[in-house]
Amino acid sequence: MVGVLAVSPLAPASFPDLPIIDGVRVATGQWSGAYGDRPDLLLVALDEGTTLAGRYTQSVMPSAPVDWCRQHDGAGVIRGLVVNAGNANAFTGKVGAATVADTAKAAGDLLGVPAQTIMIASTGVIGEPIDTPKLTNQLPALADALAIGCMDKAAEAIRTTDTFAKGATASATINGKTVQIAGIVKGSGMIEPALGTMLGFIFTDAALPAPVLDALMGPLTDQSFNAITVDSDTSTSDTVLLCATGRAGNDQPQDANDPTLDEFKAALLAVMQDLAIQVVKDGEGATKLMTITVTGADDDAAARRAAKAIANSPLVKTAVAGEDPNWGRVIMAIGKSGEKADRDRVSIDIGGFAVARDGLRVPDYDETPIAAHMKGEQIAIAIDLGVGSGAATVWSCDLTHGYISINADYRS
Amino acid sequence: MVGVLAVSPLAPASFPDLPIIDGVRVATGQWSGAYGDRPDLLLVALDEGTTLAGRYTQSVMPSAPVDWCRQHDGAGVIRGLVVNAGNANAFTGKVGAATVADTAKAAGDLLGVPAQTIMIASTGVIGEPIDTPKLTNQLPALADALAIGCMDKAAEAIRTTDTFAKGATASATINGKTVQIAGIVKGSGMIEPALGTMLGFIFTDAALPAPVLDALMGPLTDQSFNAITVDSDTSTSDTVLLCATGRAGNDQPQDANDPTLDEFKAALLAVMQDLAIQVVKDGEGATKLMTITVTGADDDAAARRAAKAIANSPLVKTAVAGEDPNWGRVIMAIGKSGEKADRDRVSIDIGGFAVARDGLRVPDYDETPIAAHMKGEQIAIAIDLGVGSGAATVWSCDLTHGYISINADYRS
Repeated sequence: MVGVLAVSPLAPASFPDLPIIDGVRVATGQWSGAYGDRPDLLLVALDEGTTLAGRYTQSVMPSAPVDWCRQHDGAGVIRGLVVNAGNANAFTGKVGAATVADTAKAAGDLLGVPAQTIMIASTGVIGEPIDTPKLTNQLPALADALAIGCMDKAAEAIRTTDTFAKGATASATINGKTVQIAGIVKGSGMIEPALGTMLGFIFTDAALPAPVLDALMGPLTDQSFNAITVDSDTSTSDTVLLCATGRAGNDQPQDANDPTLDEFKAALLAVMQDLAIQVVKDGEGATKLMTITVTGADDDAAARRAAKAIANSPLVKTAVAGEDPNWGRVIMAIGKSGEKADRDRVSIDIGGFAVARDGLRVPDYDETPIAAHMKGEQIAIAIDLGVGSGAATVWSCDLTHGYISINADYRS
Repeated sequence: MVGVLAVSPLAPASFPDLPIIDGVRVATGQWSGAYGDRPDLLLVALDEGTTLAGRYTQSVMPSAPVDWCRQHDGAGVIRGLVVNAGNANAFTGKVGAATVADTAKAAGDLLGVPAQTIMIASTGVIGEPIDTPKLTNQLPALADALAIGCMDKAAEAIRTTDTFAKGATASATINGKTVQIAGIVKGSGMIEPALGTMLGFIFTDAALPAPVLDALMGPLTDQSFNAITVDSDTSTSDTVLLCATGRAGNDQPQDANDPTLDEFKAALLAVMQDLAIQVVKDGEGATKLMTITVTGADDDAAARRAAKAIANSPLVKTAVAGEDPNWGRVIMAIGKSGEKADRDRVSIDIGGFAVARDGLRVPDYDETPIAAHMKGEQIAIAIDLGVGSGAATVWSCDLTHGYISINADYRS
């Protein structure tokens, strides 16, 4: 267990005021004791008719809860959610699979719904079996305590090394009906999600068929949770679930491309990006948020890979930590990405100031305004690769002594 | 310019005693002033008949010297080599290309050989044009000072943030003739070579046709310079040149698979691995050398990619720095590699002690001997992926406050 960490300097002033999502009830408690007095267990109950879409880690070593969710989310139905911190239930073999099945059965029995409609997510230590009764014995009290609202407590209960709880909200109209979106997320280290982030849960009272929800999830995840990195390390347990209770009673579009969904899509993307960026702002040891925009790539995927190469480069991240406008390291990172680029047409801007054009430092290059920009908390790096029209934005943080302290100086 | 760095705790006790390679003459000097009193310019003259094979960075932003060497090494001939530290001549456009051509011409004129037989390598800051006369004006004095031996001085002259000069040697017989091999290398940060390392130069008096030399280079580079990483950052300038003067007068095998070359191959690999591992031992901030062996992979390339994922993981590297036997992070890194693995057959050993078998922590797991191993300077991690017979070994170092200090606390 790491010591109590100072709150990230990039943390928002306060947790946002999340709306009640009709059809969602929440309770939190403790099971592991790994976080002192902090809750580490979350039970969510979702009303009948709630549709579901999920995205998960691309790790080839997925956790038992990820296996379970993948196995059961195809039905597009969710009635309950159990999330525990303190143990990831990953690399635990058949024992771990049994823990998940038993937990889903216990929660399902308490809520009066089938086990396969209970989704499970776990985060914490890898390779240690969970003492199942220790966890499931807490569930009856949580089932008794289920209440509307309380999303702030839910966000607290899923933290591990997070220095602040993370939530975001937006509203939109679909076919004239106002719908609400509220999301929570946890994540701080082991962050380069590959289809997902550590754990993110987004609830809406919109009525949307599961296939529509699923079709929305892909591109919006790519522009949010798949566009962030803290340390390039992909968790075994990344999970993002989007749950729609339908209680807003809107007419249901049957196609994700239906224009009546445009406003909802924008609102959902705003919530997902807000949550994803909060994870970066709470990146272990982070003191600066980097926004890296790549344009002029072969396609959007190439742009994202090039941006990730910059976002993950230890030399770029330490230069940002050191407030050093060392744009040569950006060049290096583009080079190592392997993505197509025209070396003699590449351009770079930092903080909106031109650094390089046509593969050369600009003739009248003046470091003064760029050095001033590097002293801020939000660092903007923009690169044009000069070969196509692909574009992507990726968020990352700096690499500081704080990251080393959190991950090397303490025993986990 | 960074401050004077303490010598790596993993440095060898002394620079090795490198043999004179008949046909190789060396001189060093100063041109940039970037390293105080330390030499930063190297001229090597190679006798007529010297064959050449080269391997270079796979960066899509290669430096001007890399472009030049690639353009001219196809002839398999080298008569001179100019290496400068202090400026990488990368991202310098046509100006940079002219600098290289002018330098090759100047050195060629001094040595009485064609410019295209002069190879160039540069390391240092990216994006700043070289003041060409400032460099070439030093060459006549160096040409006058050319001498046999002095490989220790050559190794000194190519350093940048290296805390010690790096050399290695071996001998072998080819068709009954004894041949000598001597190599030097520089590199400390921005190290995940993709076909090459920062800069490495290996000289032998063996007589070998250039195509044979080239055929040897590929697989031996994969097992040495391509099997190391410090920080996952690939330089614009990685260059390894293998030069064979032929002065040993051995009968020349015409095929790299000729069994009379077996002993030479083993000796050459030993030199290349020795040099590569010295780069890791001088990794910025390194306090521990990690040897990561992956077996049971789909093929050798898959094994190398999985091993690199572990070798580059900030969470694995900080765990090693913290002497924490946190093997869950090894599982995470295998997972993120995306390489095929049978989660339920994976095995892990640390320091020769079994940690996991068949996808589970071993039943009688005892952390005591593993914790003791983690306190040493040489950390061995072995993983079997349980799917095939592919194998690879990769070397890396830990990630410490020292890396952050070198790359963030000082302005470069």
